[in-house]
Amino acid sequence: MSQLSEIRDAMREFADARDWARFHDPKSLMLALTGEVGELAELLQWLPADEAATLVRDPALNQRVGEELADILLYLVRLADVCDVDLAQAALEKVTAAGTRYPAQEVQGVAPRPRGLT
Amino acid sequence: MSQLSEIRDAMREFADARDWARFHDPKSLMLALTGEVGELAELLQWLPADEAATLVRDPALNQRVGEELADILLYLVRLADVCDVDLAQAALEKVTAAGTRYPAQEVQGVAPRPRGLT
Amino acid sequence: MSQLSEIRDAMREFADARDWARFHDPKSLMLALTGEVGELAELLQWLPADEAATLVRDPALNQRVGEELADILLYLVRLADVCDVDLAQAALEKVTAAGTRYPAQEVQGVAPRPRGLT
Amino acid sequence: MSQLSEIRDAMREFADARDWARFHDPKSLMLALTGEVGELAELLQWLPADEAATLVRDPALNQRVGEELADILLYLVRLADVCDVDLAQAALEKVTAAGTRYPAQEVQGVAPRPRGLT
Repeated sequence: MSQLSEIRDAMREFADARDWARFHDPKSLMLALTGEVGELAELLQWLPADEAATLVRDPALNQRVGEELADILLYLVRLADVCDVDLAQAALEKVTAAGTRYPAQEVQGVAPRPRGLT
Repeated sequence: MSQLSEIRDAMREFADARDWARFHDPKSLMLALTGEVGELAELLQWLPADEAATLVRDPALNQRVGEELADILLYLVRLADVCDVDLAQAALEKVTAAGTRYPAQEVQGVAPRPRGLT
Repeated sequence: MSQLSEIRDAMREFADARDWARFHDPKSLMLALTGEVGELAELLQWLPADEAATLVRDPALNQRVGEELADILLYLVRLADVCDVDLAQAALEKVTAAGTRYPAQEVQGVAPRPRGLT
Repeated sequence: MSQLSEIRDAMREFADARDWARFHDPKSLMLALTGEVGELAELLQWLPADEAATLVRDPALNQRVGEELADILLYLVRLADVCDVDLAQAALEKVTAAGTRYPAQEVQGVAPRPRGLT
């Protein structure tokens, strides 16, 4: 189940068993993904920034955060599937591209600037 | 690389090699995730809903959609890591829970209603 | 209250009366805004696209949609305030800029293309 | 132009002059709103949390933040319009409801807890 392809298959089966594939067009899934992202944001929003990494290890909050992270992943994998994207392959290419785009020795400890600001 | 744990390790290595782990607190990563979700939404927003699944198979758009899906996955995996969440395990539990919450025979072809509306 | 400056003042007063201004740094408010955007997305996600404009006029759903739209506006106005942005002025400038960027006679009935795709 | 109704009318006119109202169904506008929210998140994501309120006053960043805040407002107002929601009225009701829900004397300096956590 740790494989993205297994999650993809489980989501396919889940949707097909409920005749829900009809609802899973890209824009609807994109909104569902946005909804789950919002739920995760709500869990983190008022945490003091410098304590957040510690506070999310509290068992009750950690459980909730894990559930929302999982929901995001499930919709993400499903969206990739209906868009005919090989998510694992795309992720591999992106990690490689990021390594080239941000040479380690040039960006040591310097956060990327937003596009359009220098 | 298709394993979530391998993506997690690649992101750790990427961040550590650049001394960027200092920027990767949960709230900052949550905002980065939100940023990537927005980029994907922009690719889909004006597509006619009933043609979207076909149009996203156009090679140029499919490439872009794949890149944004990948960006979301990378930040999602990284956020799970700094929150000490086992994302694969959480996803497995969520798929199982969804199967119980929505019995296939009861919800055939019926989209879930938003919470609070009956 | 229809004036953005009145909403801004009401939000200031609300935060100050509760000693909540301490929580209203830009990144936290950005996450709160994201949370409300997610709640609105959840209300719309499974509506059939071509019936959505009609279905959101159903009184119960319309009430909920209105509440979420309002929540987004309140955090948006508050975020603009803590960022020292004159939101009404910025909106005016953006409408004017959009009119120049998309000449009416050139874009009749043609949706804008995502950046980077031609 | 500071009135929400004036922004609404300007957006109507903008859409009608370009025959773009056909693209402005609720779900598409919701995705456009999500896209703009993502752009704002990207401007804030790597700012140190405790310096963000100061750093966003830098003229170049403040200009960019103002533009993204404005874009969000424009789509929000447009979305409210196509959903037949009186946004100013809804905002007024929400501010009033929030005042009742969070009595000032009971929540002094205490951030609200996420739903479902006690």
